[in-house]
Amino acid sequence: MKNKLGVHAQVWVGGWSHEEAARAIASTAAIGYDYIEAPALDPSLIDIDFTRRELEKSGLGITTSLGLDDSCDISSGDAGKKARGEAHLMQVVKTTRDLGGTHITGILYSGFQKYFTAATPEGVAGAVEVLQRVAEEAAKSNITLGLEVVNRYETNVINTAAQGVELCKRVGMANVKVHLDCYHMNIEEADAERAIIDTGDYLGYFHTGESHRGYLGTGSIDFTKIFRGLVKANYQGPICFESFSSAVAGEPLTGILGIWRNLWTDSTDLCRHAMEFTQAQMHAAQQAQAINTRVDW
Amino acid sequence: MKNKLGVHAQVWVGGWSHEEAARAIASTAAIGYDYIEAPALDPSLIDIDFTRRELEKSGLGITTSLGLDDSCDISSGDAGKKARGEAHLMQVVKTTRDLGGTHITGILYSGFQKYFTAATPEGVAGAVEVLQRVAEEAAKSNITLGLEVVNRYETNVINTAAQGVELCKRVGMANVKVHLDCYHMNIEEADAERAIIDTGDYLGYFHTGESHRGYLGTGSIDFTKIFRGLVKANYQGPICFESFSSAVAGEPLTGILGIWRNLWTDSTDLCRHAMEFTQAQMHAAQQAQAINTRVDW
Amino acid sequence: MKNKLGVHAQVWVGGWSHEEAARAIASTAAIGYDYIEAPALDPSLIDIDFTRRELEKSGLGITTSLGLDDSCDISSGDAGKKARGEAHLMQVVKTTRDLGGTHITGILYSGFQKYFTAATPEGVAGAVEVLQRVAEEAAKSNITLGLEVVNRYETNVINTAAQGVELCKRVGMANVKVHLDCYHMNIEEADAERAIIDTGDYLGYFHTGESHRGYLGTGSIDFTKIFRGLVKANYQGPICFESFSSAVAGEPLTGILGIWRNLWTDSTDLCRHAMEFTQAQMHAAQQAQAINTRVDW
Amino acid sequence: MKNKLGVHAQVWVGGWSHEEAARAIASTAAIGYDYIEAPALDPSLIDIDFTRRELEKSGLGITTSLGLDDSCDISSGDAGKKARGEAHLMQVVKTTRDLGGTHITGILYSGFQKYFTAATPEGVAGAVEVLQRVAEEAAKSNITLGLEVVNRYETNVINTAAQGVELCKRVGMANVKVHLDCYHMNIEEADAERAIIDTGDYLGYFHTGESHRGYLGTGSIDFTKIFRGLVKANYQGPICFESFSSAVAGEPLTGILGIWRNLWTDSTDLCRHAMEFTQAQMHAAQQAQAINTRVDW
Repeated sequence: MKNKLGVHAQVWVGGWSHEEAARAIASTAAIGYDYIEAPALDPSLIDIDFTRRELEKSGLGITTSLGLDDSCDISSGDAGKKARGEAHLMQVVKTTRDLGGTHITGILYSGFQKYFTAATPEGVAGAVEVLQRVAEEAAKSNITLGLEVVNRYETNVINTAAQGVELCKRVGMANVKVHLDCYHMNIEEADAERAIIDTGDYLGYFHTGESHRGYLGTGSIDFTKIFRGLVKANYQGPICFESFSSAVAGEPLTGILGIWRNLWTDSTDLCRHAMEFTQAQMHAAQQAQAINTRVDW
Repeated sequence: MKNKLGVHAQVWVGGWSHEEAARAIASTAAIGYDYIEAPALDPSLIDIDFTRRELEKSGLGITTSLGLDDSCDISSGDAGKKARGEAHLMQVVKTTRDLGGTHITGILYSGFQKYFTAATPEGVAGAVEVLQRVAEEAAKSNITLGLEVVNRYETNVINTAAQGVELCKRVGMANVKVHLDCYHMNIEEADAERAIIDTGDYLGYFHTGESHRGYLGTGSIDFTKIFRGLVKANYQGPICFESFSSAVAGEPLTGILGIWRNLWTDSTDLCRHAMEFTQAQMHAAQQAQAINTRVDW
Repeated sequence: MKNKLGVHAQVWVGGWSHEEAARAIASTAAIGYDYIEAPALDPSLIDIDFTRRELEKSGLGITTSLGLDDSCDISSGDAGKKARGEAHLMQVVKTTRDLGGTHITGILYSGFQKYFTAATPEGVAGAVEVLQRVAEEAAKSNITLGLEVVNRYETNVINTAAQGVELCKRVGMANVKVHLDCYHMNIEEADAERAIIDTGDYLGYFHTGESHRGYLGTGSIDFTKIFRGLVKANYQGPICFESFSSAVAGEPLTGILGIWRNLWTDSTDLCRHAMEFTQAQMHAAQQAQAINTRVDW
Repeated sequence: MKNKLGVHAQVWVGGWSHEEAARAIASTAAIGYDYIEAPALDPSLIDIDFTRRELEKSGLGITTSLGLDDSCDISSGDAGKKARGEAHLMQVVKTTRDLGGTHITGILYSGFQKYFTAATPEGVAGAVEVLQRVAEEAAKSNITLGLEVVNRYETNVINTAAQGVELCKRVGMANVKVHLDCYHMNIEEADAERAIIDTGDYLGYFHTGESHRGYLGTGSIDFTKIFRGLVKANYQGPICFESFSSAVAGEPLTGILGIWRNLWTDSTDLCRHAMEFTQAQMHAAQQAQAINTRVDW
């Protein structure tokens, strides 16, 4: 298995104080993950030097993720929001670069919110332009942008993998990829396995997550299909485990995501299980792909 | 199969003008459904006499459904909102009674919206009080209230069947039941089949719906488990098919629900399929329950 | 849905007396099936003229199926068995032609039995030669041969779809196709949906059947995947429902298949359900394939 | 997780020479399993002292398993076969006792073969008598008998868990339990999870195995349901992983089981994966059971 495995920081902490950053990084590394995904909704909250030193101490990689707030909605068609969104994304690129990060993912293309009307051609065209400039800047630091396909309650722009591929094509930059998340796919895709395969080389980032955002394997997602899809698509990129419980309160993320339930309290057990579950499923999917149906006659 | 089968009116129409009401009712009856579920977010939009005559013409039954808007949020702890919510619910009881309806279901206990903070004990206690009075009024017309368990993006009060049962117990009225919907269960339940069984006699209304709200059988829901759960729970109540496509635009419902995709255009084919799919699955579930494992030795 | 739908005669009768033939044919037609699959383990038991008249009366088509017994095992490498097997298959071709049949399917390439050692290259090569001559004869009457892929307990030659395709390729005749059966696939395939798709144009016949051979939808088979596979493979050929219960005793078939349990007694309900279940699943699979993921921006 | 985990010896070796026994035991222990299940179709082939020393060296436990051959078929109603079968089983009890074994499992109640007619009341009654005497003898050494429920091709007596419970009841001895195997359940049960739960306290031994008998997670079995069933049944007994590939040739077992395909060659990878897969699934099932649906209002 060549995929880098990571966890979202909010399995450990709700913020990014020195204590939180140090704890999240050390805990992630202790289990054996390759990297941590740090929320960067407000990149100014990240002490770059401190974080970088903690990462180096643990030998851990980093990616950042965010969703734009309404005032920065680059898909809105509003010039002011577009300008603010572009500035915000450029700031995240700078922060991620300084952290030594490899990917910026999430809802980079619209507000991270419940919309009440559909996206418009003009709005999305505006987002595409902004993303082209942000991607150009990111490319200078070898950073990949992952446009996360999320469910209908979190954006009105890309809810399916096919829509994500279309948006990537419009942006048309080699470092802009589709970011799929099986939590969202469980809601929006007709066939998650097929969607992963069809995304193919556009797939640049993957989130594992259960249907209710708790422990992997405790909800309604058919993970056999998810991992077979990843193997059939020959996906070699990062796989990040994401889970949210009201036990780790991190505003505004928890409120936006509607995390009302205490689905777990023991972060270490949660993340160790996620790694073991992921490895066992990935190995099974690889063996299923390679299974012998040869005849000996 | 003794369950009454219905469809939600928005598979046909986005509003309730005379033309729309007549068409929705006639179309529902033509396929062979037993009843129609009419949205009653604003009951004043329903011409009761006209609707009743159309129902009688077709021999169709009716139920109503709604979610409270923020100004009527009886779980808010705000006295004004509680009073408005109670008045609104009383109005829906009156309308439903006059229509000859049997059930009022939906998000009767809170706002039908994306919350940003968790529900509070005081807020829910207020909702319980209101529901007791509304249920008392509904009972006079043999109307059952179905408290719909919905996903985290549509309420912060009851996201799981177990929570729905708890709310029913707090209300403590014989005509207040849990309304489960497999679209929402797919997001929130660890095990939808088990949740249906555990709800047991508290289950009073059921929505079928696919994971992306399109045709049954075209998404990620394991309907074998859903229908086996209903059979094991010995559920004899109404089963209503719910589906939404941007092809039938009905505000504000479509906007609240985030219906951005055109998942179908042929309502008749959609609803005929839903009936056939439901009957085939229900029959299979009943046969699976009855299967012979006897020994003849 | 363009696929012809059929049922295996043993859902109705254990033999093929005039009474049995007439009843099986009339019952199949009454439900609306397109054809009946008649067992032809011993074709001499079929009164061709009588059967043909009954078929015409009902407007029903016919296919035949069989497995070779040990004395006719053309994969055995034994010259006598090969000769007897070839004669037997030629007799079945003649019978099927005279009945107006379109397909001969089943274990046409080996014994229909529990083997104790693996198939040999020489044995299979012998079977290939025989099948080429039989297929040539069948082609004269536009009859397709379906080589049924069955589980390890019923043959040692082809247990997976990939092996079935390989055997077809060795025979190399346009009217020799793979016959898949999801009952057997449930035991042998890593991924039944994928296997159906990969069989592609080699697929010439399909058996639906539940994991325990009872009612469709009452066992462990994931029919969503089966029907999506058929749609993705663009399969337009016959689909025959097969089910066995000790309630219909037909030797030697029941003994060979190990039908010890009374899984159903009401053949009409069983077959009507199979048709409704099949149509509902097929329609869902077609809609899932066609689902709209387009963007409107 | 309190269940003892084991593997069937034929994942490593086809026989039980000193070299084979030593290798199988050492390899099993090296991965971290608690015990090995040794085939005892012919207990005279087991060098008891040697095996016991190797087990002690590795700190490994042992169980034995077998199916009776036709000449020893205690369900046949034939006095000679019954006597031979009883003697054979008594010999296995003695061998297992001397090995320090805790369980004897498998097809202890009938021939381990493809039958052609159904079991008879007289035959099974005879088997029950024999099993009572064998169980009495086994009880003296604290050995549990596990009556393995297998598919229709391997016995005609117990194909479902419910039938297994019935046979246990007829034997009526505290140390006679049902042995379930999900490979067989995939063929015979309507609902494997339900069957495990319903077996309840009668469940005394469990085999994990994939639908085609290869790597766990590479076939058609829904292991989420299997492990949730074990957790819901509060099963605390042994769980043994069973897998067969033609790469490890062990007659007569391979021939009886129809192992025609080379499904794996790397036994160590196979068994390490089985352990990791089992632990990950079991942990997920336990967490799913314990999931919080409490309300905080």
